[in-house]
Amino acid sequence: MTDTARKRPSGRAPDENRIVSIETGFARHAEGSALIRVGGTEVLCTATVEERVPAFLRNRGQGWITAEYGMLPRATHHRGQREAAKGKQSGRTQEIQRLIARSLRACVDLKKLGERTITLDCDVLNADGGTRCASITGAWVALAIALKKIRRSQALTAQVAAVSCGLTEAGAVLDLDYIEDSSAQADTNFVLTADGGIIEIQGTAEDKPFQETEFFELLRLAKLGTARLFDAQNHVLETA
Amino acid sequence: MTDTARKRPSGRAPDENRIVSIETGFARHAEGSALIRVGGTEVLCTATVEERVPAFLRNRGQGWITAEYGMLPRATHHRGQREAAKGKQSGRTQEIQRLIARSLRACVDLKKLGERTITLDCDVLNADGGTRCASITGAWVALAIALKKIRRSQALTAQVAAVSCGLTEAGAVLDLDYIEDSSAQADTNFVLTADGGIIEIQGTAEDKPFQETEFFELLRLAKLGTARLFDAQNHVLETA
Amino acid sequence: MTDTARKRPSGRAPDENRIVSIETGFARHAEGSALIRVGGTEVLCTATVEERVPAFLRNRGQGWITAEYGMLPRATHHRGQREAAKGKQSGRTQEIQRLIARSLRACVDLKKLGERTITLDCDVLNADGGTRCASITGAWVALAIALKKIRRSQALTAQVAAVSCGLTEAGAVLDLDYIEDSSAQADTNFVLTADGGIIEIQGTAEDKPFQETEFFELLRLAKLGTARLFDAQNHVLETA
Amino acid sequence: MTDTARKRPSGRAPDENRIVSIETGFARHAEGSALIRVGGTEVLCTATVEERVPAFLRNRGQGWITAEYGMLPRATHHRGQREAAKGKQSGRTQEIQRLIARSLRACVDLKKLGERTITLDCDVLNADGGTRCASITGAWVALAIALKKIRRSQALTAQVAAVSCGLTEAGAVLDLDYIEDSSAQADTNFVLTADGGIIEIQGTAEDKPFQETEFFELLRLAKLGTARLFDAQNHVLETA
Amino acid sequence: MTDTARKRPSGRAPDENRIVSIETGFARHAEGSALIRVGGTEVLCTATVEERVPAFLRNRGQGWITAEYGMLPRATHHRGQREAAKGKQSGRTQEIQRLIARSLRACVDLKKLGERTITLDCDVLNADGGTRCASITGAWVALAIALKKIRRSQALTAQVAAVSCGLTEAGAVLDLDYIEDSSAQADTNFVLTADGGIIEIQGTAEDKPFQETEFFELLRLAKLGTARLFDAQNHVLETA
Amino acid sequence: MTDTARKRPSGRAPDENRIVSIETGFARHAEGSALIRVGGTEVLCTATVEERVPAFLRNRGQGWITAEYGMLPRATHHRGQREAAKGKQSGRTQEIQRLIARSLRACVDLKKLGERTITLDCDVLNADGGTRCASITGAWVALAIALKKIRRSQALTAQVAAVSCGLTEAGAVLDLDYIEDSSAQADTNFVLTADGGIIEIQGTAEDKPFQETEFFELLRLAKLGTARLFDAQNHVLETA
Repeated sequence: MTDTARKRPSGRAPDENRIVSIETGFARHAEGSALIRVGGTEVLCTATVEERVPAFLRNRGQGWITAEYGMLPRATHHRGQREAAKGKQSGRTQEIQRLIARSLRACVDLKKLGERTITLDCDVLNADGGTRCASITGAWVALAIALKKIRRSQALTAQVAAVSCGLTEAGAVLDLDYIEDSSAQADTNFVLTADGGIIEIQGTAEDKPFQETEFFELLRLAKLGTARLFDAQNHVLETA
Repeated sequence: MTDTARKRPSGRAPDENRIVSIETGFARHAEGSALIRVGGTEVLCTATVEERVPAFLRNRGQGWITAEYGMLPRATHHRGQREAAKGKQSGRTQEIQRLIARSLRACVDLKKLGERTITLDCDVLNADGGTRCASITGAWVALAIALKKIRRSQALTAQVAAVSCGLTEAGAVLDLDYIEDSSAQADTNFVLTADGGIIEIQGTAEDKPFQETEFFELLRLAKLGTARLFDAQNHVLETA
Repeated sequence: MTDTARKRPSGRAPDENRIVSIETGFARHAEGSALIRVGGTEVLCTATVEERVPAFLRNRGQGWITAEYGMLPRATHHRGQREAAKGKQSGRTQEIQRLIARSLRACVDLKKLGERTITLDCDVLNADGGTRCASITGAWVALAIALKKIRRSQALTAQVAAVSCGLTEAGAVLDLDYIEDSSAQADTNFVLTADGGIIEIQGTAEDKPFQETEFFELLRLAKLGTARLFDAQNHVLETA
Repeated sequence: MTDTARKRPSGRAPDENRIVSIETGFARHAEGSALIRVGGTEVLCTATVEERVPAFLRNRGQGWITAEYGMLPRATHHRGQREAAKGKQSGRTQEIQRLIARSLRACVDLKKLGERTITLDCDVLNADGGTRCASITGAWVALAIALKKIRRSQALTAQVAAVSCGLTEAGAVLDLDYIEDSSAQADTNFVLTADGGIIEIQGTAEDKPFQETEFFELLRLAKLGTARLFDAQNHVLETA
Repeated sequence: MTDTARKRPSGRAPDENRIVSIETGFARHAEGSALIRVGGTEVLCTATVEERVPAFLRNRGQGWITAEYGMLPRATHHRGQREAAKGKQSGRTQEIQRLIARSLRACVDLKKLGERTITLDCDVLNADGGTRCASITGAWVALAIALKKIRRSQALTAQVAAVSCGLTEAGAVLDLDYIEDSSAQADTNFVLTADGGIIEIQGTAEDKPFQETEFFELLRLAKLGTARLFDAQNHVLETA
Repeated sequence: MTDTARKRPSGRAPDENRIVSIETGFARHAEGSALIRVGGTEVLCTATVEERVPAFLRNRGQGWITAEYGMLPRATHHRGQREAAKGKQSGRTQEIQRLIARSLRACVDLKKLGERTITLDCDVLNADGGTRCASITGAWVALAIALKKIRRSQALTAQVAAVSCGLTEAGAVLDLDYIEDSSAQADTNFVLTADGGIIEIQGTAEDKPFQETEFFELLRLAKLGTARLFDAQNHVLETA
């Protein structure tokens, strides 16, 4: 796990992100949208604003943020079964969309949002690892645009981005692509804020337990990686 | 219905198509893919080749063509419920994907295809009317690319494209956009071949019956419209 | 396709309908019902009137017509799986019931119907081809009876019947039975009105494209065929 | 409960069956079929023979009898939701089809049947109480015809019929119709054999418990009632 | 069937119940709960009181009793599939929960209950035959406790318990365990009241019909068996 | 968040676990079972061994560990809808059972297990917070017993337990109960091994981001807490 002599499959340095680009306005009807590309991963994130809240929040003077996640059947090497045809969302899909929703909810003041719901749809058009993290990073941009459009930018309390790190044959590395992800000994996802806060940490040993020091190294890489994502978000919002 | 004095909402002439563009290779993993834009409608079509056939065709020395259709939740003005979350595909979705499959099956020699299945996934990223016709026109390109890749181009027996025509306040018009589609008195879809054959005709009176002569005029427009689509298909395949 | 030397399996002439009979009142509780037999095809059509409209039409001063279609498991040569047991309606079932509903909706003035819903249930008891056309022809009778019962006959704006035609080894023929249907090169369904209007046209090439002139011949046969169906409808309504 | 001064709504005597008629051959494709009418209740019963057994019986040299039950949406006073559209069979439906299957399985020697499955489909066309009992009585006829057709009549070990009895305002009565059924204090179904055996007894107190002596009176009526059903079955089989 | 020389697998006398114990309060949050053990069968029964009634009873001044039944996947010798994972309740489960609900509803004065719903959940933790009967016997205790807690004990009109009896190789026997149940020629369930009333009788011939006299013997055994269950219920309620 | 002046609702010290007890053998049929109580939370964990592996692992000389999680409807203050009746497992349920499966899979050498599947069913009988952690801790005991029974103890590579920690009004605290859990500012779950390894870390900010130092304090508490759980596991296994 610590044999750092090995190279990463992509040739990237251990602390090197993939190339990131974000394009806004792709979804013409949505209040906010961001098409984010992180290496070979491409996710279309849209923010929909609706003037209603779920039943459990009615008449409480606050709004709600929710999320849905999907993957086009041929976003991957082998075609996956369409969830709409199968008649249900997989456990993986539900786990991911719950994570996206929690992450974005943590950076919005729901009182200031008012009695409205923002739904973040993240649909993966091409997949090459890290789709949940790209979804969060892109959804934050779509959300910021939508809040600006409805003049509720002050409800946005933090800037949020996410990155995965892992323990691979090349040691602790930043921003895993599909090849690395599928053989990593540990896989961690970090959802962080621009001012150094933690929104979500998910670390999973695939095969055998990992150590505290390894975990700290992964956290260090995540902070490096998200810093670059915050730059990309800022850049696109300034120019949009 | 014959008041041709009225203009079309888009200002187009009655026999004028919307601008069409087709981009190949957008879906990096698929054997063939085409991102087709027809005005404000945008559909990602992928062709997946798998070396197996459905049970009812096993050991009969022939292949199969099937199709699935989906729409991203926010492809439309108002967000639609995600079919994967709802747990089933609507009747409309099933009707459309059956139409796409039949249309493409009619231009493939299944014996020459051999014992393999090609699945055409058509996912609407932005919707402005005519999504089923754009799906067929784009899917044909994805199919042609995939057949070339597996060296089975000779299994392709015809060039296929589709267009909708309708009776609107501006009379009989070609290539309806969403505004026209939602108020048309009659809505027809034509799936035609480049050599003048008919693969599918679907004509529906929305409100009150239409006349035979009106129907013939719509068929005439469809032939004009598909001629331009065949050009667009040929152009992208030659340059791909 | 034009080899008219071949005989039809049933021995019928190319422009000869099957024997039609319609019996009303079979379903004792329904506001209107028609048990229609077209050759070996037998469909029980019922019209149910309910004093409510779907949510999307509430308080708009108009009614609604909808339809459902089903087939008893052993209506066919081989027993089909019961859709209620399978837990969902097939794409074919949904496509057919949407067609029935559109066809009958086009002959009713929904304002004159008032704020009520009429549901047309078409259940196939015995199947020998042409079940969707028999359903439409029979449902129109059930609808007419139900409208008379609630004193809204003036809401019925047209007389509607449907027939299938196709290109077979015996050439263009009228009113396909199961044997012809399963081997036809093209299969078309026409929903027409007694005064010469077109409500729905669906033409499908099974194997290879068909030609415009062939299509016009099928349309000519359909007009002949529906004329006889209108007679049968009139006869049963006059004697009911 | 014993106030026999009150008349039954139908005017029938307490021990009087409704009029029964059975017609065979209605379902043209089935190996056996019986359209049974018991007063206003009408059920189409078909028997389908298939040369295979469920997985749990494979290679055990015996057959299987199963059943499915359905009701057309407008068989009743108020239209019921179509179970195929709802996406599942109700608890009531499942309870009934399990009862039908058990009842018919008890009169067949599964070894003598050989490795084949007979499916009994009972579809209610018109409902006026007692649909599960009519289904069993009719299904037995369809089964007998199908067994004769495949030359396995010797596998039929008993003659089976069913009738409901209940405690009503007119006292203990035989063969409840819908009005009686919906207000009975106790409702019992008896599945009996022609030689005096019991296959199934189901007795339910609706409101308050009933007494042993009342139950014995209901059993006595059931034996009277089924005797007449056995006659009707024999009559139709002899003349078929 | 009458060969009484054979012993029961458990060594019990034909008219001997299994050991019964009932423990209350196991479910800490429920208004009433009973963990009932009948030999190797163990069921956790809870009663939940909610201040609302189903839509069809609204504003009619009465309450409702309903029930749900489940079995932990490994309550049995071989693990059964979890119904929540399978996505539906089996026909057997629905049949049982309908029986439990009917049985308990028959001993409650729904007017005196007032506009509230009591849901009886019966979850089988360990199964060794007779789970539906144990559920009813335990649910009655949970119900009595819950009614006492909401001061509606007067709504309880009868004491209810259930036991299964059957015809086995040891003759007619009381309170079948799993081994007996799976090979019995007839299986009957009796739901009786302490004052001699009958709430539900279900008798099923597994293989071949049984006789009236056999049935009467089973009923006699059931009365013996439930008498002991009433004692156990009384004991726990007095000491609770 | 660091106002440690406030007391915990239970009066426990910040680093104080709830009382833990584990009882084995409760599920009589399972290869291994543990009924674990952590304060008011009670989970029945069973391990089922089956001599087969999922399709994707066939003929690869290794086994599989999977898990399912459920909660009895009245395990909670308010009755929850039964997932089997609702027809699907919630996203929360799926997320939890995926966590349990991953956690236990990480402590088993699947090669040494051989071609068999062990399913861990965790059913919550009473809930008072921390049900997923109690499930993991109990499932490890059930797993250890089952492995011993099939003489594969050497496949168990680590001892695993889980505990939740959180940031509450009483500061960083160990082993949250329901009251604390529902108002915590951050909620973290740690799955750790007895030799200091990390199997899974899940940390979630509920309302606003938390800080790295806070996270380290929670990790410190988790190590304390799991040490006591390892003792409880060892104790029950030694005495079993």
